[in-house]
Amino acid sequence: MIQWQNLDTLEAYKKLQSLKNLVSVKEELSGSQGAQRVKNYSVPMAAGLTYNYAAKEVNPQVLAILQELADEAQVTEKFQELYNGAVINTGENRKVLHHLLRGQLGNDVLFEEKNERDFYKAQIDAIADFAHKVHKREICNAAGEPFTAVVQIGIGGSDLGPRAMYLALEQWARTNNCLKMKAAFISNVDPDDGATVIANTDLAHTLFILVSKSGTTQETLANELFVKDYIKKAGLNPACHMVAVTSETSPLANNPEYLASFYIDDFIGGRYSSTSAVGGAVLSLAFGPEVFKDFLAGAHEADITAKEKTITHNPSLLDALIGLYERNIQGYPTTAILPYSQALSRLPAHLQQADMESNGKHVNCRGEKVDYVTGPIIFGEPGTNGQHSFYQLLHQGTDIVPLQFIGFKNNQNGNDIVVDGSTSQKKLCANLAAQIVAFACGKRDDNPNKNFTGGRPSSLIYGEQLTPKTLGALLAHFENKIMFQGFLWNLNSFDQEGVQLGKLLTKQVLAHKTEGALKEFSDIFEI
Amino acid sequence: MIQWQNLDTLEAYKKLQSLKNLVSVKEELSGSQGAQRVKNYSVPMAAGLTYNYAAKEVNPQVLAILQELADEAQVTEKFQELYNGAVINTGENRKVLHHLLRGQLGNDVLFEEKNERDFYKAQIDAIADFAHKVHKREICNAAGEPFTAVVQIGIGGSDLGPRAMYLALEQWARTNNCLKMKAAFISNVDPDDGATVIANTDLAHTLFILVSKSGTTQETLANELFVKDYIKKAGLNPACHMVAVTSETSPLANNPEYLASFYIDDFIGGRYSSTSAVGGAVLSLAFGPEVFKDFLAGAHEADITAKEKTITHNPSLLDALIGLYERNIQGYPTTAILPYSQALSRLPAHLQQADMESNGKHVNCRGEKVDYVTGPIIFGEPGTNGQHSFYQLLHQGTDIVPLQFIGFKNNQNGNDIVVDGSTSQKKLCANLAAQIVAFACGKRDDNPNKNFTGGRPSSLIYGEQLTPKTLGALLAHFENKIMFQGFLWNLNSFDQEGVQLGKLLTKQVLAHKTEGALKEFSDIFEI
Repeated sequence: MIQWQNLDTLEAYKKLQSLKNLVSVKEELSGSQGAQRVKNYSVPMAAGLTYNYAAKEVNPQVLAILQELADEAQVTEKFQELYNGAVINTGENRKVLHHLLRGQLGNDVLFEEKNERDFYKAQIDAIADFAHKVHKREICNAAGEPFTAVVQIGIGGSDLGPRAMYLALEQWARTNNCLKMKAAFISNVDPDDGATVIANTDLAHTLFILVSKSGTTQETLANELFVKDYIKKAGLNPACHMVAVTSETSPLANNPEYLASFYIDDFIGGRYSSTSAVGGAVLSLAFGPEVFKDFLAGAHEADITAKEKTITHNPSLLDALIGLYERNIQGYPTTAILPYSQALSRLPAHLQQADMESNGKHVNCRGEKVDYVTGPIIFGEPGTNGQHSFYQLLHQGTDIVPLQFIGFKNNQNGNDIVVDGSTSQKKLCANLAAQIVAFACGKRDDNPNKNFTGGRPSSLIYGEQLTPKTLGALLAHFENKIMFQGFLWNLNSFDQEGVQLGKLLTKQVLAHKTEGALKEFSDIFEI
Repeated sequence: MIQWQNLDTLEAYKKLQSLKNLVSVKEELSGSQGAQRVKNYSVPMAAGLTYNYAAKEVNPQVLAILQELADEAQVTEKFQELYNGAVINTGENRKVLHHLLRGQLGNDVLFEEKNERDFYKAQIDAIADFAHKVHKREICNAAGEPFTAVVQIGIGGSDLGPRAMYLALEQWARTNNCLKMKAAFISNVDPDDGATVIANTDLAHTLFILVSKSGTTQETLANELFVKDYIKKAGLNPACHMVAVTSETSPLANNPEYLASFYIDDFIGGRYSSTSAVGGAVLSLAFGPEVFKDFLAGAHEADITAKEKTITHNPSLLDALIGLYERNIQGYPTTAILPYSQALSRLPAHLQQADMESNGKHVNCRGEKVDYVTGPIIFGEPGTNGQHSFYQLLHQGTDIVPLQFIGFKNNQNGNDIVVDGSTSQKKLCANLAAQIVAFACGKRDDNPNKNFTGGRPSSLIYGEQLTPKTLGALLAHFENKIMFQGFLWNLNSFDQEGVQLGKLLTKQVLAHKTEGALKEFSDIFEI
C-alpha cells in the first residue's frame, strides 16, 4: 500500500539530518585517492551515457541513508503507480502519462475505453506520414512549391522543450544530411517576437505549427492571428500554411482552418510534452520522423532504468536524492546546469521550466502546506561561455551553488581545427575536466584574492556524442529526476496553480476592471 | 578623505539590521492606499525612463537608513574617485574608465600622458569612419562587392553585452530603416558554435570582428582560425574579411592580417565594454554610427544621474541599496531580471555576467575575507515567456526571489493586431502590471494549493519605447547599480581572479600534465 507522506515524517530523513557537512569533496577528490573515487562514483545511464558523482558531497554512509529514504518514500512504487495510470496529478484529477509517449512501461492504460499508448502512437504515426509527404513534396503550398522551413507558435512547454531539442540536433542533422527544414519559434505575446521571426521567414515556403493543448492560450492565439495577418498580406491562404497540435476537445480541433491537426490529451503536461506531438511535429518536419523515433527510443531507455529500486542502478533517482540532500540538508537554494555543448544552449532554459514549474510548490499533493524547502532555482548557460561570465561567483562567491555538468567526447559537426596542439573539441573537454576539479579541490594561495577554497560540488553526465538517442535519454533523465524529487517532497509535480492569479489579474486589467495599485500600474502603460 | 570600510563596520548597517521584515509589501500595496504608493515610490531615470519601487519592502524609515548607509560608505565620493581616474581596480593596479567611453564626468584622466577620453573618442570616430565606408561600399570585398553581414568572434564581455545590445535594437533598426548589416556571434570554443553560424553565413559578403583585449583568449583565437579555415576554403582572403578590436599592446594590434584594428585599453573591463569599441564596431556596422552615438548618449545621461548624493535622485544608487537590503538583511540569495520585451531576451544573460563576475567575491578590495554575503545569483528570461515557465516557483515556491521587471509602453515594430479587444502590446503590458500586483499582494484562497501568500517584492523600470538612447540608459543604470553595490560591500568589482584556476588546470590537461582526479576526468574525454 503506497503512503503519501511528507518528507519530514520519514525516519530516513531524520537520519539524513544528522549527516550535514559530513563529506568534504575537497578531501575526497584531492590527492591520489581522487582517481579511484572518479572511477567508483560512476553509474551507467541509458543510451551509453554515464552519471559521475565523484565531486558530490556523498560517501557510502550518506548513500545508504539515501537508499533508505528512497525505499521508505516508495518512490519507485509511486513511479509504477504513475505509469500504470493512477491519478497522480490529484489537483487536476489527471493521470500523468508522458512516459507512454515513448513506450509501454507497465500495464495498458485506458481512459474512457481509449488505450492511451495506442492513441499517442497513432499521433506520432500520423505526424510521420505528414512529414514524409511534406519532404516528398506531396504536400506543398498552393503554388505547388515545397515547404522549406517550419515555425512553431507556442509558449511555455510548447516552446522551451521543442526549441531546446531542435537546437540540440540542428548541427547534428546538418552533418548527417537530414536537416530537411530549418525551424524557428514564436512564443512571446510581445509583437516584436513574431515580427522578428517573420522578417527572417520566406512565408510562401513556410509551414506554421500552432501548439496549444487547451486551444485558449492568450499569447499563442494572438500570435496565430498576427502571423495569419502577414500570410494574408503576402497573398497566401493561411489554411494552406498552418497545422495544429492541440487536444481533441479544444476549439482548434478538427478545424478546416488547418492543413492537418495532431493531438495530445490532458495527461501530457506542457513541460513534459517534448516527446509528444508538441515536439514531434516540429522535430519530425525538421529532421525526419526516423530521427524523432530515435529520440523517443533514448527517452524510453532512460524510463526503463528509472524503474530500478537500487539507487546506484537508477541514475535519475540517485541524482534526485543527491539534489534533495543538497537542498534540504546542505541548504543550497540554487542549482546550475552547465552543458559543455553549444547545441544544448537552451537546455538550461527548458530545465528551468521543467524543474521550477514542477517542484516550486509549498503545498503537498493533498494541498497541505509543507514545512521544508522544495524545488531550487535552476539557471545555466553553456560552457565555456559561462566560464567568462558568472563562474567568478561560483568559484569565489559567498554562496555555494551545486553544479550539473554535461559533456561529450565528440562534437556534432565534422570539422575541427588544431591550434596550439589541440582541437577545439579537446579544449572544450579539457575546460570541463579542469572546472570540476577546480570547483571541488580549489587551490591554496597566500593572497586571499587568489585563494580558491574548493568544496563546491558538481556532477557530470557524459557520453560519446549528442545524438537523437542520447538527447532523448538526457531529457528523460531530468524528467524522471524531477518526478522522483516531487515524490520525495510529497508534491504534486504536475499542476501549476501558481500561474493562475496572474492570468486572472491580466483579464481584469484588459477589461479595465481594476482599482488601487493595479489600476495605477495599468495607467503607467496606458492600457 | 575616503575610507574603504567593510559593510559590517558601518553604523548605518547596524541600524539596518534591526529593520528586518519591517515592511509588508502586501499590506502597503493592497487596498486604496496602494495607488498612492505607486505614485510616490517612483524616481525619474535618464532618457525618460522611470524606476518604480512601490513593490519593494521599504518605507521612509528604511529609506532614511539606506541614505545614511550611502553617505557613510561614501559611495558617490568613491564614484567621483573612480571617474577622476583613481586606481579602483586595486588587485590589477588599474583605473576603471568605462564611464569615459561615453562622456566626461569629471577631471581629465591622463595615463602616460595620453588623455583617456580623447583616446576612447578617437576609436569611436575611427569605427564610425570605417562603418560609413562599408555602408557606402567604399570598403568592399576583394571582388568589389558590398559586405552585408557582420559576425563577432569573442567570448564573455566581448560577446554577452554586444550580443544583448544587438538583439535589443535589431527590430527597432528594421522598423527605422537602419538595419544596415545583420549580425551574428561566435563565442564558444565548442566547434559546433562556429560551424552553426558559418552554415548560415554568406562568407563572401561577411565582415568578421575579432575581439580580444589581451589578444590571447583561448576560445577566440581558436575560433579565429576555425573561421579563417572556412574563409580560405571558400577561396577568399581572410585579411580582407576581418577586423580586430584589441588593446594596443596585444599581439593582434597593428597586424596586417586585419582590414582594420580598433582599440581599447586595460581600463575597460570586458563586462563593461559594450560602450567601447568592443560593442561599438558591431553596433556601428549593424545600425550605423549615429545609432551607436545615441546609445552612448543614453548611457552618459544615466552616468550623470549616478553622481547625485540623494538616493531618491539617483535611481542606480537606490536600486543598489534596496538590493543590498534584500541580500544582507532580508536574506534573499537570488534576483530575477524579467524584461517584458523580447528584444531584451539576452539582457538577463549579460547582467548575469556583469553582476556575478563583478560582485561574486569573498574578499574586500584589500584582499581580506569579508564576513557577509555579497553578490546574488542573477537569472531571468523575458516575459511573458517566463510566466509559462519558472514563475510557478516565484509565486508559490518556498523561497522568495526579488524581481526586477522592465517594460515599455510601445513595442519596436510598427505592426500589431487586435485580438479580443486589445493589441498584443497591451496584453504584454497588462501581464506585467498584473504580475507585479499578484506577486506583492497575492490572493487568499481556502484551498492552500490555490492560495497566494504575496509579499514577493519587485521593482519596475519603464519607458515609452526601447530605443538606442533608452537602451544606453538602461545598461548604464545596471552598470552603476553594480558599482555602487561593490562599494557598499567594499569589494573590488573590477577584477575576476575566480576565473584563473580553471585556465591553469585546463593548460595542465591539454599538456597531459595531470594526476589523480584531474587525470581521470581527462581520460573520460580521451584528451
